[in-house]
Amino acid sequence: MLNIGDSHLMKKINLAILGATGAVGLEILKVLEERDFPVGNLELLAHKSEAGKKIIFKGIEYTVKEALEDSFENIQITLVAVSSEVSKKFMPSVIKNGSIAVDNSSAFRLDDNVPLVIPEINPEEVLKHKGIIANPNCSTTIGLVAVNELNKYGNIKRMIVLTYQAVSGAGLDGLKELEEQTRAELDSKEYKNTIFQHKIAFNIIPHIDDILENGYTKEEMKMVYESRKILNKPNLLVSCNCARVPVMRSHSESITIETEKEITVEKARELLSNAKGVKLVDDPINNQYPMPLDTSNQDLVYVGRVRKDISSLDGKSLTLWCCGDQIRKGAATNAIQIAELLLEKGLV
Amino acid sequence: MLNIGDSHLMKKINLAILGATGAVGLEILKVLEERDFPVGNLELLAHKSEAGKKIIFKGIEYTVKEALEDSFENIQITLVAVSSEVSKKFMPSVIKNGSIAVDNSSAFRLDDNVPLVIPEINPEEVLKHKGIIANPNCSTTIGLVAVNELNKYGNIKRMIVLTYQAVSGAGLDGLKELEEQTRAELDSKEYKNTIFQHKIAFNIIPHIDDILENGYTKEEMKMVYESRKILNKPNLLVSCNCARVPVMRSHSESITIETEKEITVEKARELLSNAKGVKLVDDPINNQYPMPLDTSNQDLVYVGRVRKDISSLDGKSLTLWCCGDQIRKGAATNAIQIAELLLEKGLV
Repeated sequence: MLNIGDSHLMKKINLAILGATGAVGLEILKVLEERDFPVGNLELLAHKSEAGKKIIFKGIEYTVKEALEDSFENIQITLVAVSSEVSKKFMPSVIKNGSIAVDNSSAFRLDDNVPLVIPEINPEEVLKHKGIIANPNCSTTIGLVAVNELNKYGNIKRMIVLTYQAVSGAGLDGLKELEEQTRAELDSKEYKNTIFQHKIAFNIIPHIDDILENGYTKEEMKMVYESRKILNKPNLLVSCNCARVPVMRSHSESITIETEKEITVEKARELLSNAKGVKLVDDPINNQYPMPLDTSNQDLVYVGRVRKDISSLDGKSLTLWCCGDQIRKGAATNAIQIAELLLEKGLV
Repeated sequence: MLNIGDSHLMKKINLAILGATGAVGLEILKVLEERDFPVGNLELLAHKSEAGKKIIFKGIEYTVKEALEDSFENIQITLVAVSSEVSKKFMPSVIKNGSIAVDNSSAFRLDDNVPLVIPEINPEEVLKHKGIIANPNCSTTIGLVAVNELNKYGNIKRMIVLTYQAVSGAGLDGLKELEEQTRAELDSKEYKNTIFQHKIAFNIIPHIDDILENGYTKEEMKMVYESRKILNKPNLLVSCNCARVPVMRSHSESITIETEKEITVEKARELLSNAKGVKLVDDPINNQYPMPLDTSNQDLVYVGRVRKDISSLDGKSLTLWCCGDQIRKGAATNAIQIAELLLEKGLV
């Protein structure tokens, strides 16, 4: 017998994916299939140069179409996986057609009318949507999932975040550039970088996104502003240094949190071992800690190396290390979790 | 006419290199030659398995000899580039023969009777030697050269250091493992790691040296204890996170310093542009900042991305990014600078 409360499970949702052929778009399709999201009609949209490409989803071949203003008719949820510029261009059409946008770009994240949602942290925010729900930046999502339960227990006042970011943050072209450039480097051949500002093979580039007047990059300030909004702490102190590393698709972060209430290492481990979206991997003596290779192609944020920040005078400071897949939890999976929330809460 | 004050320049120093065939030993030879150090007799010493190897120095072929207890007779300076265990084993013989040891291992660094010297920072410490002068750990040297002038001006109270360490820290075998494993990875072949705890190709390993009871690694605590000793600040607050990255031979560090006196970004740049051993590379808008590839095979520590730590409440906190060659300034060059100091100060 069908439980009325489960009736939403029977619903099929008409979905559009804007930017279906990029790294995040393709991963969205993979995650939709894995999680058995109830997809009704599916529109795969992209730049006209991609139109005509074939993509298989659940055994059915779909043809990628050029994204146009009228592409969103009868679409309930549009998963947006394009640049901010393209997102801004199409958003009026998405909304006009009554489709809810889950936007992976940074275009609307800090807009007061747009919820910025990590389902493990602030799921209820989706109820406030006015047509757009924003997906946070990948490094914000990974870092905040890692510290969420520690914050609920200890109330974070200050965060110092250092990132070691994978090339997938620059999309499929970023992945290709690292692979081809590394091969060229090993063979002592020339390979001109076109995606990153400098050679990324066997190098570190402490520069992601534009440089702002205060000397921070946009990527670094995303961590500041998005964390404040998601944790609902307008005065949270955050500093961040973002660096690109020659790693394919998982970001690593070293995070130091200063809290109002002291958190012992034991308590932190207990909180983390029960935290949603987190896998505690913290047995360094036996060489167990989060690493990008282990966290790729899955959804959990691994957390380890939990220890007291020994540079803190009052003992109310913890340091930890976390890793998570930038394309999945950092982008595609979080977007689909938001879509699932919309379904669960009867918003579509 | 010979200036009497320059008479030390005429002296030739009998040198031994203990561990002459390792990454640091070979670099020591290169740097001695580059800097035209006045080498008299030269003994190249190593484990007996290396004995008989030929090494060219200044056009002359030398034969590597097995290091024995009587290898240090008539040697004025012994440059030690072996493990702590081997250093401890040979040190009595070195000292008994009246040779001064410049020890690159961690064996004696924290010994109260052993000066721990970075020539740009505390050169006068060499005067206190009792037979051994210790060379700091590579990441300590690179980080402290970067912040030295800022400390002199503003008085550092707390440092938070995050490292991105090159594989050369594990010697020639570390370099070989990264190269061969990366090639294998690109060709989808198996390659068993023997040097690092895990695969290092396209990965990050947040674990260097043994794990201690407080959850930090020995490598991380070296930054704490060595910084206190070198800066002569027993109460300096330091926390550190060390991670191994797939980079060949330059370490990168993100450093946040809290100071007693506020340092503006402009003042910091002015201090850094005149700092010994430092090259200020800080024009991020034009993509100029320190990177490991640019700092390899040279001696300067590059410093950039200088900015206010925006998570600090009192404004007395700065964040910067630095890179330096781990084998050169992090080891070989610093050791030879110490040998030069011994010569300058008439200690040999």
